[in-house]
Amino acid sequence: MLFEGSEKKIEVVVTDTFPSLRSLGRGFWIDVVSKARASLLSSISNEWCDAYLLSESSLFVWDHRMLMLTCGVTTLVDAAIYVLQHIPAKDILFASYQRKNEYIPHLQKSTFEQDWKQLCGYLSGQALRLGNLDSHHCYIFHTDKPYQGHIHDSTSELLMYHIRGEVADYLLGPNQTRDGIRGRLELKQLLPDYILDDYVFSPFGYSLNAISGRYYATIHVTPQSDISYVSFETNQPLSTQATNLSKWLDILQPGSWDIIGFNSIPNMPDMPGVFRLGAKEQRLSCGYTMLFHHYQRGEQCEVRVYEDN
Amino acid sequence: MLFEGSEKKIEVVVTDTFPSLRSLGRGFWIDVVSKARASLLSSISNEWCDAYLLSESSLFVWDHRMLMLTCGVTTLVDAAIYVLQHIPAKDILFASYQRKNEYIPHLQKSTFEQDWKQLCGYLSGQALRLGNLDSHHCYIFHTDKPYQGHIHDSTSELLMYHIRGEVADYLLGPNQTRDGIRGRLELKQLLPDYILDDYVFSPFGYSLNAISGRYYATIHVTPQSDISYVSFETNQPLSTQATNLSKWLDILQPGSWDIIGFNSIPNMPDMPGVFRLGAKEQRLSCGYTMLFHHYQRGEQCEVRVYEDN
Repeated sequence: MLFEGSEKKIEVVVTDTFPSLRSLGRGFWIDVVSKARASLLSSISNEWCDAYLLSESSLFVWDHRMLMLTCGVTTLVDAAIYVLQHIPAKDILFASYQRKNEYIPHLQKSTFEQDWKQLCGYLSGQALRLGNLDSHHCYIFHTDKPYQGHIHDSTSELLMYHIRGEVADYLLGPNQTRDGIRGRLELKQLLPDYILDDYVFSPFGYSLNAISGRYYATIHVTPQSDISYVSFETNQPLSTQATNLSKWLDILQPGSWDIIGFNSIPNMPDMPGVFRLGAKEQRLSCGYTMLFHHYQRGEQCEVRVYEDN
Repeated sequence: MLFEGSEKKIEVVVTDTFPSLRSLGRGFWIDVVSKARASLLSSISNEWCDAYLLSESSLFVWDHRMLMLTCGVTTLVDAAIYVLQHIPAKDILFASYQRKNEYIPHLQKSTFEQDWKQLCGYLSGQALRLGNLDSHHCYIFHTDKPYQGHIHDSTSELLMYHIRGEVADYLLGPNQTRDGIRGRLELKQLLPDYILDDYVFSPFGYSLNAISGRYYATIHVTPQSDISYVSFETNQPLSTQATNLSKWLDILQPGSWDIIGFNSIPNMPDMPGVFRLGAKEQRLSCGYTMLFHHYQRGEQCEVRVYEDN
């Protein structure tokens, strides 16, 4: 019943002179997905973006940018290498490979360091870790040539652990429906004007891709009680409804959570009884400012009694 | 340079009618140690106890109790099984097998759950975890038959992460000496009347066994900057100098620490700027009350930049 929710993520931006990544075709992207040992569930498109919902997370493809995140025991590094083998280094403006610390790291096929060493064969860059090894932390390997994104180019990730309350109970319950989950997550309010593509896993688990113009949002829910985890990620700027991070905390009541941002300042007010356990803003040599914040709501100390063998 | 400081631990108490465990002889205990893939460095003895200092931690043998802890990538479960193969189940009054969450878990030869499943072939008991999977936590498997230890039978463990300050710098420095370490750790004051047996590893790292009557104390230092860790453990009651836990925190200035106790109430006053992130007192079916506390001093968020491949 243990499923690793923590995600790995790759992002690549190519030059305007490189052919549109979307024109590489569905078949190419299905191959990419299969390299990570994931599979395609469904997809949606608009003028800007093709958004693929995967058996383990998501792939978004714009004309000159791609973003893929996968959880579980997927081998995203293999997908990353497959992509990099099809784009000459001179056409890569920016690339990054991220990994969050895992709940059950010994099940992973590789470590971040091993992935990084493989990626060094294709990209020149810098690897770092934000956060202490004995606490929540994240790894990133990014190209180190200067890259200046669009003025509104920002990303915000909210990673929630140990969700609780009515919505958490529903997400773990036996009678979930797509509309039931959409309603409880208040997606109409939080993601207005987005096209939604979502999937309810059996016996539980939920994934959503959403696109609106150039914006994407994605939600992945691993509700299993020992390692419950929900991730929300978007490139919509922070002043808008979609990135009302506090609202997500109200709905899902996580015991702890992290915010990871790229050129994004999280709008997180002081909350009584919440410890800010770590906070770092790191200017990366590629040009982005990366932010990592780790929070915990009061004392947390689960007792898990194992069933007999 | 990464070395896993986090310990595994086994403790066994035998009946009065079973031969003295000390009488099994040095050769037997060296075999036990080798099963864990550790080796013997030195030993001290008094009327009550033989204390063996190991390449990875310690072994203490009394007439009717044994305690072994090992760190690194040792296979303590194999040592535990070897011991259990030499003591009939009817002669075991109490046994426990503990594991702290590791800094670099993917290097371990086995998980707690795998160890537990192996041990179930020899012991009937209960396995549990105290603490959340995404934070500091510890595992224990213990026999479930009722056991009533001596009235003063208690154990206190203080596990310190991310040590800082002058003593931490000295412990990582190039010119350490045994006397230099003993002095900076104030062992004369903290462990008066103890016989000491210690070892300074190269290029750094320090281990100490200490015995005084029926009491033991043991200290293990892994000063490497990414994963610095110091453990202190003793069965001396809390009212005494040796368990002045606050004093250790003053000397080693850890960024975070845990207290694990068995029939032991840690004497930890409120400290300004320190978060108590988790606290649990759990009555075990064997009779001990196990305590787990996790603390962090203010915000902690290291940035580690990796050297080029």
